[in-house]
Amino acid sequence: MKSKYNPHIIIANGENAAAGRGITAKIAKDFFDLGIHGLTMGNHTWDNKEIFDFIDDEPRMVRPANFPPGTPGLGSTIIRANGKELALVNLMGRTFLPAIEDPFRMADEIVGNLSKKHKCILVDFHAEATSEKIAMGWHLDGRVSLVVGTHTHVQSNDDIILPQGTAYLTDAGMVGSREGVLGMERDAVLRKFTTQLPVRFQVCEGKWQFHACVVDIDEATGHAKKIQKIRLLEDEWIME
Amino acid sequence: MKSKYNPHIIIANGENAAAGRGITAKIAKDFFDLGIHGLTMGNHTWDNKEIFDFIDDEPRMVRPANFPPGTPGLGSTIIRANGKELALVNLMGRTFLPAIEDPFRMADEIVGNLSKKHKCILVDFHAEATSEKIAMGWHLDGRVSLVVGTHTHVQSNDDIILPQGTAYLTDAGMVGSREGVLGMERDAVLRKFTTQLPVRFQVCEGKWQFHACVVDIDEATGHAKKIQKIRLLEDEWIME
Amino acid sequence: MKSKYNPHIIIANGENAAAGRGITAKIAKDFFDLGIHGLTMGNHTWDNKEIFDFIDDEPRMVRPANFPPGTPGLGSTIIRANGKELALVNLMGRTFLPAIEDPFRMADEIVGNLSKKHKCILVDFHAEATSEKIAMGWHLDGRVSLVVGTHTHVQSNDDIILPQGTAYLTDAGMVGSREGVLGMERDAVLRKFTTQLPVRFQVCEGKWQFHACVVDIDEATGHAKKIQKIRLLEDEWIME
Amino acid sequence: MKSKYNPHIIIANGENAAAGRGITAKIAKDFFDLGIHGLTMGNHTWDNKEIFDFIDDEPRMVRPANFPPGTPGLGSTIIRANGKELALVNLMGRTFLPAIEDPFRMADEIVGNLSKKHKCILVDFHAEATSEKIAMGWHLDGRVSLVVGTHTHVQSNDDIILPQGTAYLTDAGMVGSREGVLGMERDAVLRKFTTQLPVRFQVCEGKWQFHACVVDIDEATGHAKKIQKIRLLEDEWIME
Ligand SMILES: [Fe+2]
Ligand SMILES: [Fe+2]
Ligand SMILES: [Fe+2]
Ligand SMILES: [Fe+2]
Ligand SMILES: [Fe+2]
Ligand SMILES: [Fe+2]
Ligand SMILES: [Fe+2]
Ligand SMILES: [Fe+2]
Repeated sequence: MKSKYNPHIIIANGENAAAGRGITAKIAKDFFDLGIHGLTMGNHTWDNKEIFDFIDDEPRMVRPANFPPGTPGLGSTIIRANGKELALVNLMGRTFLPAIEDPFRMADEIVGNLSKKHKCILVDFHAEATSEKIAMGWHLDGRVSLVVGTHTHVQSNDDIILPQGTAYLTDAGMVGSREGVLGMERDAVLRKFTTQLPVRFQVCEGKWQFHACVVDIDEATGHAKKIQKIRLLEDEWIME
Repeated sequence: MKSKYNPHIIIANGENAAAGRGITAKIAKDFFDLGIHGLTMGNHTWDNKEIFDFIDDEPRMVRPANFPPGTPGLGSTIIRANGKELALVNLMGRTFLPAIEDPFRMADEIVGNLSKKHKCILVDFHAEATSEKIAMGWHLDGRVSLVVGTHTHVQSNDDIILPQGTAYLTDAGMVGSREGVLGMERDAVLRKFTTQLPVRFQVCEGKWQFHACVVDIDEATGHAKKIQKIRLLEDEWIME
Repeated sequence: MKSKYNPHIIIANGENAAAGRGITAKIAKDFFDLGIHGLTMGNHTWDNKEIFDFIDDEPRMVRPANFPPGTPGLGSTIIRANGKELALVNLMGRTFLPAIEDPFRMADEIVGNLSKKHKCILVDFHAEATSEKIAMGWHLDGRVSLVVGTHTHVQSNDDIILPQGTAYLTDAGMVGSREGVLGMERDAVLRKFTTQLPVRFQVCEGKWQFHACVVDIDEATGHAKKIQKIRLLEDEWIME
Repeated sequence: MKSKYNPHIIIANGENAAAGRGITAKIAKDFFDLGIHGLTMGNHTWDNKEIFDFIDDEPRMVRPANFPPGTPGLGSTIIRANGKELALVNLMGRTFLPAIEDPFRMADEIVGNLSKKHKCILVDFHAEATSEKIAMGWHLDGRVSLVVGTHTHVQSNDDIILPQGTAYLTDAGMVGSREGVLGMERDAVLRKFTTQLPVRFQVCEGKWQFHACVVDIDEATGHAKKIQKIRLLEDEWIME
């Protein structure tokens, strides 16, 4: 993958990296060792308590910026790699998710500040509802390089360059087993839906799937020139 | 489109056909006149009161089968066209949606009955959460020809033939303007998210987008042989 | 208390008896040894896994009857004590709670069956929304002796005999510390609301409160003759 | 009522005054003419569009203060009557309600400002969940005279003076018909719960109920000396 696209900067969402529930220092280190330059999080940020031990010392990781004032960690950061820099912002939606600060107003504030010094800005909008995600795309069109959604674990087929130059994708999709439900054992998930009893979810084994997107940014303007979805299935290659 | 793929049977979701809110007899007739053979609905089924006047006389339209007993209209039907027949089922999810009957148990019951006489079965699972939709795909794998989701208005990039022969797509996506949010004026939707005041949504004008999927079914087994997503944007053709 | 009111049959809700999360066999036994004749449950029924070991052997305990078919335990039972008998039914609401079977239709079915042989019927409707609870009161008015709500942990001041003879109370209220929030440490609950971070809730110490209601039933008709709320605060007696 | 208790200042919640949906200028005027000195609102504030015409000119009415910046109307105000003054604050909860600003932080800010000049402060916390309401009571204990909840339409039986001097009541309850569900026709509400079809709710006729609470405040400290619930049912008097 890296050799095919040769990206300058690679970002991943890590909120489910620790067996579906948060992330650990070890796993974060593994990501960075693999060549990932920055990590975003989401509603599962705090699931693994270990995060409280290292998030304040890790400038390459962001958690949703619209958690209340005083929340540990950063909501935005600057990632530098291969001679390039990218401002990285994480926001979380509020539709069908916990009641935190308004992501649209927070976007205005953070992007307003970042854009004084930075052209290339990526916003990972971690949200459930397509309406809220698409609205954020329009809200930031022309002000950031890319608004990409996470959280649903299913890649959307709606990659587009919006009229003012922001690349947009409702959901980047997941990396993990393709034999389960969002990466968890499918029998357990089905049992949960049909019995409403407590069920312990295990990470699913089996063939993998890999989803991502690649965006070319014009460094002079910060506008996106091209967005490409990537979808790889073990035993099958599906790529545009 | 029709001449390119030449499908035997065409199904559309019509729950937002009347300016976003339900459907009317006139609009349903227009769909059928255009060559659509069957219509499915969803959480907006009853938004336009006119539906109560004609749904019980329209065997080509289904509303979610897991509404409570006594609900007007059909939850499943048989569509016949071009010498072929397709059993059409509509179900609705319960995650982030109204509390109705269990869609998984209802699926067992309806598919159990239909499969006594019919090989080719399409299930439109109208639902919000990707977990519930993917779980339904696995639940019905090998028992129906196709499980396709609707409701999010964004096409997913996860078309697949599941191991037992059921074609699956989390969401078929929408048909309508691509300059709004789910087909509605984007300024109004943004105002709603940022002010939380009541906002009147209008159907959006502007360039259109068209999403669909085409599935080849083996009539002898009812299993899917191939699934293809279609995504057309006005001024751009994006097709696999 | 017992000597003051001298009730024939005493029922308690036990879903939070094990430090807020479910119930154990030992705690259930303690309740019965204290003179409680029947136990109802709710959305926390399954929080303590131990319940799966004994619920099928305990005819004095009911869990919401509108869990899906196949759920362990009973949804209704007959409690006999002091020469009297009381049919005990547990139902759970669906507004702001998990999507289970329709409690209104389930009420029709269960009450229809019970009333063939039993006059005195108590329904514990474990629900969040006052609208759903009051609706259930009207739904069953004249068909059961008492509809009493649980789940909010706050006693309501709306005890009434409905026109057809059913006693009704939106919520019976809780028994436990009155220095916390619903029985849990108030600092932790406040931290949860203000930070949206994960917080471990501990059962609250401190002065207690006791809430209950006493209903006199006409055994010939099953109709309620009188309903009385009880509210006792440590260091204060508040009783009508 | 007025002659019995002879209160200096009377406050009412008016969010459902216009047939259940918002309030009009005429109805607000009727309230003031009847001797009510201040009005609070809630999630139904904007249901009747007429409010946008007069809310900015009406200093005796407050809407939830934690609506986003720029929302019409006031979140707090000073009510003066009979030689007394009362600072009136309206806040709205976020559990099972729209995602607005954090009511706890907003409470800190508003109460911090008001308490520089005012001793007697009433907070109407319009919220669904008992946990959020009780948490707000503890949060403001000793800082305001009274935290009283609204929104559930059912009076709670938990009036108390908290240890630092704040009177607290989870819900004040409603004024209106007692033959419906929260003041609306009970048949329509039941039909909604059992069919999940759209139902038009009408205000219920029939015998009325009246709920309120009376609080005595020590003007020197702003602390509550006494809180009394009032519950009146047509044809019955129920008063402690
Ligand atoms: Fe995730
Ligand atoms: Fe997530
Ligand atoms: Fe829908
Ligand atoms: Fe829709
Ligand atoms: Fe409880
Ligand atoms: Fe509960
Ligand atoms: Fe309300
Ligand atoms: Fe209300």
